[in-house]
Formats: sequence, structure tokens, C-alpha cells
Amino acid sequence: MSQRPTHQLFDAYFTQAAMRDVFSDSGRLQGMLDFEAALARAEAAVGLIPKDAVAPIEAACRAEAYDLAELQQAIVSSGNSAIPLVKALGREIKRTSPEAERYVHMGATSQDVMDTGLVLQVRAALALLEDGLAALADALAKQAQRYVDTPLAGRTWLQHATPVTLGMKIAGWLGAINRHRQRLAELKPRVLVLQFGGASGTLAALGDKAMPVAEALAKELDLTLPDQPWHTQRDRLVEAASVCGMIVGSLGKLGRDLSLLMQTEAAEVFEPAGQGRGGSSTMPHKRNPVSAAVLISAATRIPNLVATMFAAMPQEHERSLGLWHAEWDTLPDIFCLTSGALEQALLVAEGLEVDAERMRTNLELTHGLVLAEAVSITLSQRVGREQAHQLVEQCCRRAVEQKCHLREALGQNETVTAELSADELDHLLDPAHYLGQARTWVERACAEHHSLTSAR
Amino acid sequence: MSQRPTHQLFDAYFTQAAMRDVFSDSGRLQGMLDFEAALARAEAAVGLIPKDAVAPIEAACRAEAYDLAELQQAIVSSGNSAIPLVKALGREIKRTSPEAERYVHMGATSQDVMDTGLVLQVRAALALLEDGLAALADALAKQAQRYVDTPLAGRTWLQHATPVTLGMKIAGWLGAINRHRQRLAELKPRVLVLQFGGASGTLAALGDKAMPVAEALAKELDLTLPDQPWHTQRDRLVEAASVCGMIVGSLGKLGRDLSLLMQTEAAEVFEPAGQGRGGSSTMPHKRNPVSAAVLISAATRIPNLVATMFAAMPQEHERSLGLWHAEWDTLPDIFCLTSGALEQALLVAEGLEVDAERMRTNLELTHGLVLAEAVSITLSQRVGREQAHQLVEQCCRRAVEQKCHLREALGQNETVTAELSADELDHLLDPAHYLGQARTWVERACAEHHSLTSAR
Amino acid sequence: MSQRPTHQLFDAYFTQAAMRDVFSDSGRLQGMLDFEAALARAEAAVGLIPKDAVAPIEAACRAEAYDLAELQQAIVSSGNSAIPLVKALGREIKRTSPEAERYVHMGATSQDVMDTGLVLQVRAALALLEDGLAALADALAKQAQRYVDTPLAGRTWLQHATPVTLGMKIAGWLGAINRHRQRLAELKPRVLVLQFGGASGTLAALGDKAMPVAEALAKELDLTLPDQPWHTQRDRLVEAASVCGMIVGSLGKLGRDLSLLMQTEAAEVFEPAGQGRGGSSTMPHKRNPVSAAVLISAATRIPNLVATMFAAMPQEHERSLGLWHAEWDTLPDIFCLTSGALEQALLVAEGLEVDAERMRTNLELTHGLVLAEAVSITLSQRVGREQAHQLVEQCCRRAVEQKCHLREALGQNETVTAELSADELDHLLDPAHYLGQARTWVERACAEHHSLTSAR
Amino acid sequence: MSQRPTHQLFDAYFTQAAMRDVFSDSGRLQGMLDFEAALARAEAAVGLIPKDAVAPIEAACRAEAYDLAELQQAIVSSGNSAIPLVKALGREIKRTSPEAERYVHMGATSQDVMDTGLVLQVRAALALLEDGLAALADALAKQAQRYVDTPLAGRTWLQHATPVTLGMKIAGWLGAINRHRQRLAELKPRVLVLQFGGASGTLAALGDKAMPVAEALAKELDLTLPDQPWHTQRDRLVEAASVCGMIVGSLGKLGRDLSLLMQTEAAEVFEPAGQGRGGSSTMPHKRNPVSAAVLISAATRIPNLVATMFAAMPQEHERSLGLWHAEWDTLPDIFCLTSGALEQALLVAEGLEVDAERMRTNLELTHGLVLAEAVSITLSQRVGREQAHQLVEQCCRRAVEQKCHLREALGQNETVTAELSADELDHLLDPAHYLGQARTWVERACAEHHSLTSAR
Repeated sequence: MSQRPTHQLFDAYFTQAAMRDVFSDSGRLQGMLDFEAALARAEAAVGLIPKDAVAPIEAACRAEAYDLAELQQAIVSSGNSAIPLVKALGREIKRTSPEAERYVHMGATSQDVMDTGLVLQVRAALALLEDGLAALADALAKQAQRYVDTPLAGRTWLQHATPVTLGMKIAGWLGAINRHRQRLAELKPRVLVLQFGGASGTLAALGDKAMPVAEALAKELDLTLPDQPWHTQRDRLVEAASVCGMIVGSLGKLGRDLSLLMQTEAAEVFEPAGQGRGGSSTMPHKRNPVSAAVLISAATRIPNLVATMFAAMPQEHERSLGLWHAEWDTLPDIFCLTSGALEQALLVAEGLEVDAERMRTNLELTHGLVLAEAVSITLSQRVGREQAHQLVEQCCRRAVEQKCHLREALGQNETVTAELSADELDHLLDPAHYLGQARTWVERACAEHHSLTSAR
Repeated sequence: MSQRPTHQLFDAYFTQAAMRDVFSDSGRLQGMLDFEAALARAEAAVGLIPKDAVAPIEAACRAEAYDLAELQQAIVSSGNSAIPLVKALGREIKRTSPEAERYVHMGATSQDVMDTGLVLQVRAALALLEDGLAALADALAKQAQRYVDTPLAGRTWLQHATPVTLGMKIAGWLGAINRHRQRLAELKPRVLVLQFGGASGTLAALGDKAMPVAEALAKELDLTLPDQPWHTQRDRLVEAASVCGMIVGSLGKLGRDLSLLMQTEAAEVFEPAGQGRGGSSTMPHKRNPVSAAVLISAATRIPNLVATMFAAMPQEHERSLGLWHAEWDTLPDIFCLTSGALEQALLVAEGLEVDAERMRTNLELTHGLVLAEAVSITLSQRVGREQAHQLVEQCCRRAVEQKCHLREALGQNETVTAELSADELDHLLDPAHYLGQARTWVERACAEHHSLTSAR
Repeated sequence: MSQRPTHQLFDAYFTQAAMRDVFSDSGRLQGMLDFEAALARAEAAVGLIPKDAVAPIEAACRAEAYDLAELQQAIVSSGNSAIPLVKALGREIKRTSPEAERYVHMGATSQDVMDTGLVLQVRAALALLEDGLAALADALAKQAQRYVDTPLAGRTWLQHATPVTLGMKIAGWLGAINRHRQRLAELKPRVLVLQFGGASGTLAALGDKAMPVAEALAKELDLTLPDQPWHTQRDRLVEAASVCGMIVGSLGKLGRDLSLLMQTEAAEVFEPAGQGRGGSSTMPHKRNPVSAAVLISAATRIPNLVATMFAAMPQEHERSLGLWHAEWDTLPDIFCLTSGALEQALLVAEGLEVDAERMRTNLELTHGLVLAEAVSITLSQRVGREQAHQLVEQCCRRAVEQKCHLREALGQNETVTAELSADELDHLLDPAHYLGQARTWVERACAEHHSLTSAR
Repeated sequence: MSQRPTHQLFDAYFTQAAMRDVFSDSGRLQGMLDFEAALARAEAAVGLIPKDAVAPIEAACRAEAYDLAELQQAIVSSGNSAIPLVKALGREIKRTSPEAERYVHMGATSQDVMDTGLVLQVRAALALLEDGLAALADALAKQAQRYVDTPLAGRTWLQHATPVTLGMKIAGWLGAINRHRQRLAELKPRVLVLQFGGASGTLAALGDKAMPVAEALAKELDLTLPDQPWHTQRDRLVEAASVCGMIVGSLGKLGRDLSLLMQTEAAEVFEPAGQGRGGSSTMPHKRNPVSAAVLISAATRIPNLVATMFAAMPQEHERSLGLWHAEWDTLPDIFCLTSGALEQALLVAEGLEVDAERMRTNLELTHGLVLAEAVSITLSQRVGREQAHQLVEQCCRRAVEQKCHLREALGQNETVTAELSADELDHLLDPAHYLGQARTWVERACAEHHSLTSAR
């Protein structure tokens, strides 16, 4: 065990390693240092600082060069991470070039460094999410097509309803992912922007070089130059958090469905088996939905983490105290939990185990009652809607009372058999004949997926 | 007082009347009834039901015809509002046309009615928000231009910092509104969609007429036909809630700034006076920020209401129990509180009272210290950054210790005066000369506003 | 339909009528008016105002006398409900006694009126909750005892585990209710306190009569006189909200369990049937868990409403703007939703329908695997823990592969049969013999319940 | 930098080191291992396992013996931390005593280990909070007494109101802490309980030794044996989280007040200065409220973390998937942020810097208007309430219009001067004479504090 206590026991389970790297302490420092290096280049480009100063500054802008423990302590009295980092950066530059040290961080304020550094992390994070969503959408599209004609019980209020297909269910999961990809595409221009305003946001310290530096800096970092600094206008970050919240909400729905389908009583769909996955310490036979647990856990936590981002919006004047601070660990948590949920969802989507036979068996649990509607509709074309409804209701009641199959109860009703032949009744009570537009929904969701993917 | 107890004491203060109308009980019923009427027209158009059935159905689709108290009670046992309404609708149609009654609600499920009805309400609500945002943006743009050159203290961590302008501050508020308008425009195609799936979402009850009916129905209601039903994929509504959350967060920031500027100690900007507005019951002289209170209150409540929408996303299978229900009163609350905050923000933005003189006075509270940076920068061009910083820091310390103005302390320092003339020092210590790009930010935010408005 | 739009469509479903009355507009006014009447009596008692002034003031302190619509509008400009009410009260008193009008509201501030009025409402609300919890605990205790020996599958991770009893499951629900009753008892002394501080909380306007008036007023209202006014120290109310949140969380767990047990695939426990309860508009056979939906819905909404109460705690100085306002509709919503959940839980607890036979059938779904532990333990006493574990695991694997019952697989294993007779194996594989302390838990929870109830 | 990325940059700023230790990975493991060691002792004591097995088991129950990275990975497939830890523990025991290994973890389930381990951590955490609250209360009581007669402007709606004292303001902060200490005392019996139920909560695996083992185990760990296992009844933990939430809410109020008083425009109270504390990177003169920022940040984040605990309450059946998981990182975050806020509040409370002179100056900002009430009350005893109110209102208006002091306006009004002498007017307009019960509130809060502390 290292000397400093860690708090990472559940990190590998709940979060994706690549995303943890993006938002690691080192990732944070590097984001800020990338800002400082780019600022030096931009200011040299417009002639504000000597070109010679750039190389020593750049050379010092490597996160590995800084002592995290020291920075952590310095943050306690400075109240942010940029002040101590910039000081340490200055000392580091000085070691090789006392001259260059004079030109670092010129005209910038702490929040410029922290926010732009964060935006660089967010860019990497969004790229990871986009990759994850694309892979998940691919896997879901394949599974939706694979099970396009696999019927299972529709379930409303957790009660059996008319049949659906597994393909359609998966297409529902896919449809949400499709929309999230659109949302990410739309928010990127708003969130991938430079933060650069200096002390109070006016860039006054840069005089008439302000806009040229700002433009060069944005270009250096490949970020958009926004209308104005946004130190206390945080909607950009909140929007990113919101889309994460929506992604996780949809994955939570996937996890909820999966955990219900995996129940011992349903046993229709399973998470992929894997060595030791979901085993129980005391019950040798169990296979627990360990991935669904991650999805549901994330969907329970994320709404409130996102709420913190919303709650932190009313930041005072030109720089907030407290509300800004509330974002610092919250937004990384949101991205990390989102990435972990995506990772587990992908694992599940790719390795989904399906028991189509059990689905057919379960469809019979209500002895045909879930297909009463099918009979009712056909019958109403013959005897009118009201009478049809009454007839079928009567047969349903009878089937329940006598614990027989609805097919039998219908076959015993003369008014019914006068209108519908035995073959017709058999056909009507076969779930595979009452799937409506299930196939259409799969096709439409997959088409949307393919158009999104080819546009990528 | 009416017999049934009401809970509306604060409604006029916290919400907009027009939005309350949209989400009133009557508004809910009318939304659902509009769905039923359009469904009848669509089904008649594709030949599923007789054309004669349409008129009697349409005639019964008026919210005024229904007894709310009765519906309220029936909801307790049915668990949703569509079942009792459709029953009552049937009875109402029957009064004039027993024949037509047979054709109402055909192929639809309760959630089709409730969700599409809701989407129609959301469309009206979004229109109100768009109008409100446009009006607010107009007012802010005008004020930003009006006060484009009015300096006041920048404030970071609630401490005076280098000067800004009131115009730039207002432009910050405007910039957020500009982005929210873009967001609303982008989400509308996703949220203004039909809900139509029948019992389990397959539209099986409509046989091969399903897609023609769905298309006709969407057209009747001027809604988009989505890829598939979305009974348990709620991201569309959550996105609308999120954008409301962002709008209110930005208005909360406006309210926070305003309430701070209105403090007795600052007294720089005020809410418009009005008869009795903000008077105190015991202190005859007070003028309370009653509009800012609404903005801050909304920004405190909305994040958690939005969190409920996120939390309600993992809806089970084809229709949820409990999570869906959690949306019913929450989304209307979100829209109503957003509308109320917008209404108060508009009132404030249009009637803003500004004491520019007091701003100048307050800028002197630190005896020039907020302009130390200006001196430091100019000086660093003469003596190098480090020495400049040290010199200015030394003068600042001296000014603080001797409780004199920084101008004086600088004037007493020979190294300083050797480099900077008295005129130069006077110029550097005038806030109006250290406003940097404040004007640029106003221009850019206003330009964006005008481009959004002309695109409308 | 009344002229003013209402927003009550789901109120009867989600909330209890008696609680809605407590927090109705009329209830709010009456709470405030009760404060004013008691204040007059207290001030007369200590000789601050003439005794003659009391009767006319008391006579005017009836909520029915005031026009809600007018008050609603006046709140918009006054920013709270007390200012316009006190004005209207003055006018009302004046009608009968211009003299008495001079003595109303003396020394009090708006928030004294609003907060103490609220505390009076909270007292009524807590009484309703205590009654509801007592009734629910009674019902649960009875059912726990009734089903003390009724085995069903234990379920962990939604997978079958070793058996439990329905009584023990219900005792778990009961245990939480027991604790909530203790919590309510503990918080009452903290929350049922007077608010009385005058303009800034010093009671300066009352001079040396301040404490005598405060004491008399507290006595009049049967409230505790707290250490000091608590205008911006809101923990008392937040604690009440938190306990509501815990109650609803526990009821949400009850609802979650119930909805899972009611699933078509489980079908072990049901909400009471009732006329039309839980019927479906399109599926004649369905019985939806409409009460569980209320419990789950409340448990989804309440955490975030409680979060608003927490978020509203950092109220500025002597009286907050915005944060205080955020409480006004939130706390009533919390109490109303809690009451509604309690009402539905009681209905369910009293009318619970149980299919013990189905429970036995479901226990066999894993063909004895859930009792592997029972065999393993007995066997380990004969052959050692490790070998026992391996033997049983081997038999489990075999039972799964061959789709036979574990009893059969065990019977075919010679090492097992060498140690355990057929009778022993039969006994071990009977769920009724592996219920451990299930009965003890029921007894302990019921004993705690009875001690709480007799202490009442 | 270590190989594994860390995420601790802001930990020293936002959290207390001792609390981080309690909830470190090592702390988690040790809690679980303490359970296993105690279980072995308890089972040996009742004769269930050989006494010889205890020592080897105990010897292996040291957190340092386990490889965190390995456990982290194993958690991914096991879905909790107990399964891999118990496996590793078994291997560790085996190294010295293969025999003893057979007796470890007997009859327990993963959640018994994790929950009891957590309760042990919570016990240590509550002790830290109690110490922190006691120290904070001490510091506040001292400061309240020190400034018991120091007047400053009361502020309601952020507007000046009648004067208060700094002592009374601090007594308000203290009063809340007093109540939190009571709450912690009351919840401890509910939360410091054993979790012990075995696979489904029945302890069936322990046969008739179950209750003796449970009792011995509780005694070993010095925890209460609850009525029944509480694997899916989480109110105990939620209550602890709620009290943390209330503590932080109160500290947030302290931080809010402090940051407002520290504003450049108010400048009445300051955080203690310290080397580099609150310096700005660009403005040499600034002193930022870096402690208040922690308090406000915590009060922004905690409500939503607590909401997660509430949201995670409806855990399914005998063991939840996902909701339980949502607690694992959330509850530690809550305790850590609470501890950090307490640490900063203590630092501030002890080192508070006060500028009483500035308070007097600020009290004059409204030129006497805040004392209009004092005049009005005395005057009303002479000329009646209504006329007094009118007279004072008239003088106030005049003072505002003529920008003169209220004393002057009053002195110019003949009706006023006919009733009140110049001396009387001077006296009435001295804030020190209109402080009402400010001193009483301080005394009462301090008395309560001392009674709590002596009871400790």
C-alpha cells in the first residue's frame, strides 16, 4: 500500500480506465499546462513575448514534472489549482531559463487556465463517449437485427401484455443511443471553446493585443473562440453534463430491462457469462447481473451529480466562490461514471445470451390472455366492437376461473366459433402473428444508426 | 372559497399565467382530447373507421365537457388519466352517436393519449419560452448597449477586481440566453413527435393500416412521426426539462448578480420600482429584490425537479409503473417555474435602474488597488515583469498600511515615478482606461442576438 | 370548470385528502391568522395592548374572510404572503373596530407569521403521519404474523437465493416503519417551536416586554420557545423533510417488492382487487399495481424535493431572498406526497392477497439449487467444509447440465449418499426446514411495534 | 507520479485527512477484515468453530496484506468487494493454517461483511464529526460571547434592517450546531448496529447457533444487535447521510454569511489571514474567502449526494442490484465533504477577524433609516400607532429625498419634536440602544452548548 491513502476500490468496476486517465490528477495538470504552452506560442506569434521564451516554457509544460502532494497542499491556501501550478511552472522554467519565466501566463487568470484545461479534458472525454456510443450502437443494431423476429411477452406495469420482439426491444435501446449521438454532435461547438478573459474577463492586461492573442490561442488549441469569456456562465459545461445524464438514464433503462429479464422467474436474457462473473459467495448456482448493477447504480447517482452542475450555475459576478468549486470533482465524476456504464453496456450488448425458447414458454404464462386483443379486433370486424369486446372479456374471465387456456374458452363459446374457425383461432393465438410493426421499428432504428455512422 | 381546497397561493408570484393555462387540468384534458379527435380523423382518412364517426367524436373532444372531480377519483383506481377520460369520452359521444362511440381510441393505448397530449402541451410551452427568451434577449441587448461604457468594479470571489462595464455584465447574461435559444431550436425536432404504439408498442391492433394511420395522425397533429414509439424511452422529455434547467440556472445567475448589486452596501443596480414592490412590513425605507427572489428560488428548485426527470428514465420494459408517474406533475412544474422566472427576468431587464455614479464611487473603495494590474503591466514594459510586480506590490502594501490611495503610494515611490509620469499614473488609475475588450464582448453578444432574431 | 385553472388532476391519486387540507391555501392562511390571534392574546396578557383589542382581532382571524385571488396578486409585489394578509387583516378588523386594528401584528415580522403558521401546519401534518404510520405498522404486524411460516424464494440480485418467509419480508417493512416512528418522536421537540423575532430577529420593537410576550405566545400556541429565532437556520424544517424522505424511501421499497412479486412471472402477492382497480384499457385480463406505482413514484420524486430543502439551507444573514422562497411549495409537496404514499401503503398492507401455493411452486424453479447451501452445511459437518463445497458444487453443475432436480443429482452421487440418507436429503431440500431465524425476525419486529404503540 | 492515476488533487482542500483515512481503500478493507476476525472469535466462543482457528484468521485480518489492484479487478466480475476479499483472505490464512481457512466467513454473506465493515467506518466517522462539532461549538461560543455587544446592520433580503449584534449572528450558527450534536447522539443507536443475516437474511446456515453467534459477534464489535438484518432496509445509513447534509447546510449558511461580510463593500468580518491564504494570481491586494468557498461548495454538492442515498432506498427483495452499489462511493463522499467543511469552519471560527468600526460605519449607510422602527415605536406610545407610522414614514421619505440623515429629518418635523426631545432622538437613533434580545439569544445558545458539552 502506498503511503497516501487511495480511494479507488470500486473504480475499475464503475468507471472506464481511459476516462479515469483523462480526468486523473495528471490529466488535469496536463490540460492546464497545455494551455500555458499554447498561450506562450500565441503570445510569441503576435509579438507580445519573445519567440525565445516559447521553448523553455513548452519544455516545462509536462505534468510529470510536478509534485502532486505539494500542489494538493498549496491548493488549500490558494483556493484553486492554477495559482500553485503556475508558481511551480515558473520555478521549473526558471531552472532552464530565468528569462522565459517572465513571460509565462501573461494576461491570463487562474480560471482561464483551469477552464481551458478542463475543456481540453472534456474534448478527450467526448471523443471517448462518441467511440463508446458508436460501438454500442453497432452492437445493438446487430442484435436487433438478429432477434428481429424473436417474440417475447410485452410487459406493461410489469404485467404481461401483447407480444413484442426482442429485436424491437433492443431497437428501443438503440433509438435512444442514436439521439444521444446527435446531441453530442450538437453540443460540441458550444462546449469546445476557449476560456480566456484575464482578471475580470476584459483581457485588459493585454491591451490591443488581446483579440489577436485570443484568436491565436484558440487556433493553437483547436478550440472555438466564444463570443466572450464565460467564467460565470456555466451552461456549456452543464449541457455536457446533461447529455451524460441522458446517456446514463438510457443505459439504466437497458440495465433495468436486463435485470428483470434475467430474473430466475423470467430467465429470458442473460449477461454474458465470464470467468467468475456474477458468482455468489454462498450460492454455487447463481449468476448475478453484475453489469446491470453498474448501469442501475450509475443511473441512480448521475441524476444528482447533474443536479449539482445545475445548482452551481448561479455564479456570482465575474468569478464565483463555492459554486465554481462544486464543479471541480463533480463533472469528472459524471464523465467517469458515464464511461463505466457505457463500457458495461457494450460488454452486455455484444455478449447478450438469449433463451428464445423460454420466451415462448413465458408467453404462455397467461394461457393466451395476452392475445385476447388480437381475437377481439378480428371479432369486432365481424360482430361490432362492443359485442366483440364483451365476448372476449367473457371468455377471458372463464379461462381465468377455469384455469384453462383462452383458446379453449374461445372454442367453447358458440358465438365465437360461429365467427372464427379453429384455424383462425389458432392463428390469432400465435404470438408470432401479432407482432404488428415490431420489424418496422427495428428497420427504422437501424437505418438511423447507419446514417449516423456513415456521417461520422 | 371554493369547496375543494386549492394550492395556488404563490402561483402568480412564481409562474406565468399563460404557462399555467397550458398545464392546467383543462389543458391536460384538451391535449388528450385533441389526440382522440385527430386519431378519428386519421383513421377515417385511411378508411379504418367510417367518415361519419368523425364529427360526433370531434364534437365530444372539448375539455369543458368533463367533470374534473370525477376524473380525479377515477384516476385513483385506474392509475392513469387516459382510461377514465376515454371512458367518459365514450359516454359523451354516445349521447349523440352510439355508432361513433365504437370507433373512438381505436388501436391506441393510454400512454399514447397521455404522451401525445403532453407533447401538444409541450409545443405550446416551448412557444411561450421562445417568445419569453426573445423578449428577454431584446431587452438585455438594449441594456447592454446602453451601458456599454459604464464602468463598475469587477468582482471575483466577491472581492473587487479590475473594472468591468455594466454592458459587458449584461452581455454575459445575454450570451447565455442566446445559447438557450439555439438549444431550444435543436431539441424541437426531437421532442415534438407523435407517441403512438398501442398496447405494447407494436400497433398490432391496427394490422396493416398501422403505418398509414400513424402517418396520417402525425400529419393531423403537425408532429413528427418518430422512428418508433418511445413509451419507456424518455430522453426526449428529459432533454426539454434539461434546457429549462439551463435557462433557469442562467436566470438564477442574473438574479444572484442583481441581488448582490442591490445590496445596501453596493446599491449600484436596482429592480424597477413599482407600487408596493418589495416594501417591508416593518421597515418603511426598504426595497426588497422581489424579482431576484423568484429567480434564485427557481434556480434552487429546478435542478432537483430536473433530477427527478433524469431519475425517472430507467422505465421498465414496454410501460413503466411509478417512474412514468413521477413525470406527471414534475415536468409541468418545471415549465411553470421556468416561465415564472422568465417573466420576472423580463420585468427586471426592461426596468433596470442603474446608479452609475455609485459605481464610480464604489470603484474607489480599494483606493486604486483594483488598478494595480494596469500599473504593473505598463511598468513591466519598462523595468521587467518581476521588478514591476514587486514595485507595485510594495506600493499596494504601503497604500493599505497607510490607508492612502494607491496613486499616492505610487507617486511617493521614486523608482515608479522615474518610469511613469504623473499624467501616466493618473491615466492608469482611471478605471475607464482599463476596460479591455468589454465593448467587444457586448458587440459580439448583440450580433449573435440579432442573427438569432432575424433567423426566427 | 371554475374560471381559474386548477392543477389537481392527479392529487387524489398521489396525495391524501386530509393532508391536502392541511396545506391548502386556506390552511396556510389559517395558520398565519392563528399566529396573529395568539399574538394579540399574548400581548394583551402581558399588558402590551388593551384586552379589548383581542376579541375584534380574533374575530377577523378566519381564513374564509379573505379573497385568495387578491392575496395571490398582492404576493407578486410584496414577495411574501404575510404582508398582504396582515394588510387585509387590518382592513377586516377595522370594519368592526378601528381601535383594535392598531394593535394587530405588533412587534412581529412577516417571517414570524409565515414560519409559525407553517409550524402549526407541520404539527397537524405530523399528527396525520403518526396516525398513518401507526395504522400501517398495525396492518404490517398482523400480516407478518399471519404469514410467519409462509416460505417463498429469497431473492438477491433478483436471482433466487435460499428461502425466506413472507412474514419476515413484511417484518422488514415493519422494522423501518418502527424506526420512522421513533424519528418522528425525536424531531417533534425540535420542529414544533415558535418563530418570533421581529424585523431582524432581536424583538427590539417589544422592548422589555419581548420575552414575556414570546413566552406567552409560545404557550398560547402550545409550541416550544426555542433558544432564539431561526429565520435563516432552517435545519428544523429540513429534518422534518428528511424523515418524510426516509418514510417514503421505505414505502418505495415496499412498492418495489410488491410490484416484483406481482409480476406475471412471479404472481405471488397482489394488491387488493377493487372495482376497476388496475384494469387496462386494452387488455381485459390485466391487474396493474396501481398502488405500488404511487409508492415508487413518490420514492422517485421525494429525494429531490428533500434535496431542495437541503439546498435552501444557506440562507443569507437575517432573512434570505430566494432560498426561503424555495421552501414554500416544496415542503407542502413533501408532506402531501408522503401522505399519499402512506395511504396507498395502508390500503395494500391491509388488503394484501397472497398465493402461498405459487410461492411453493416458484421455489422449485431452480430445481432445488437454492437449497444447495443447506446440503453443503450439513455435509461439511461430516466431510469437512472444502470437500462438502466441492461435492455440492459438482452436483449443482450436474443438475443444471442434465436439467434434473438437485435432489436427484445428490441421490446419484455415492459420496453424498454415503453420508446423507434419502430422508435426510428430502428434509434438507424442503424449504420449510431451512428458514433459520425468519420467525425470530418477525417476533422482534412485532415486539418493537407493540412497545411503540403502547407507549403512544 | 505513481503508475496508477490518482484523483486527489482537491482532496486536501475539500476533505479532512483523518476522514479520508477512515474511508480509504485500506479503511474499507480493514472494516471488512475486522468483521471476519470478530466472526471467528464469536463462532469459536459458541463452539461452532475450533478455538485454534481464531489466531490464524485474526493474523490474516490486516488490510496491508492485500493487493488493492488485484481486488479492484476482481470486483469487476464479482460485483462486490467482499467476495474477492474473502477469497484472498482464505488464501492468506491457508499460508499459515490450511485448517483454519475452512472456518473463515462461516454463515455470513458478502453484504454482512461489507455493511458491518461500513458501520465500523461510520462509527469512526461519527466520532470525528462529534469531535469536530464540539470544537466548532466551543469556538463559536467563545466568539459569540466576545462579540455579544458588537452591533452591525441586520440584513434581510440583503437590505439593511434594524441592527443586530455579531454575537447574536454567531449564536445563530452555534444553535444549529447544538441541534446537530443532539441529532448525532440520537441516531447512533440506530446506525451503530451489526449486519448479519447470511445468504437471504435468515442465518439459516448457522442452524440453532445463529442467535448466539449473532449476539457474540455484536458484542465483539461493540455494536447493537438489531431486530433483524437490514440488507435492503437502508434508512439507518440514510439518516446518517441526512444529518451530514444538515450539518453542511448550516456550515454553508455560515460560509454564505462570511463571504457576504467579507465583500469589499462590507468588509466587516474576515477569514483569518495566513501565509498565502486567498491571494490572487493577478491582483496583489486581494484576500479571497477560500474557506467560505469550501463551505459553499460542500453545501452545493451534499444535498444531491444525500438525495442519492434517499433515491437508493427502494432496494429489491433480500439484496439489491444497483441501488446498493450506488451507496458505495456516495456515503464516503458525504462524510469526507462534511469533515472538510467542518475543518474549514473551525479554522474560520477560531481565527475570525472582525472590524467593529467598519460595522458602525456601515450601520450609517442608510442615514438612520434602519432605526426608523425604534422611533416609530416610541412615538406610537405618544401619538398612536397609525399617526406615528405616518410621521416616521414622512420623515424617512424626506431623508431619502434630501439625502440627509433621518435624525435631521426628524429634528425638522415639529410634530415629532413636540413629542421627542433631542436627547431622546439621539438615543433612539443609536444602534446600540436598539438591540433587543440579542444578548439573550447569545446566552441561551451558549447555555445549551455548555449543557451539551458537559453531558459528553
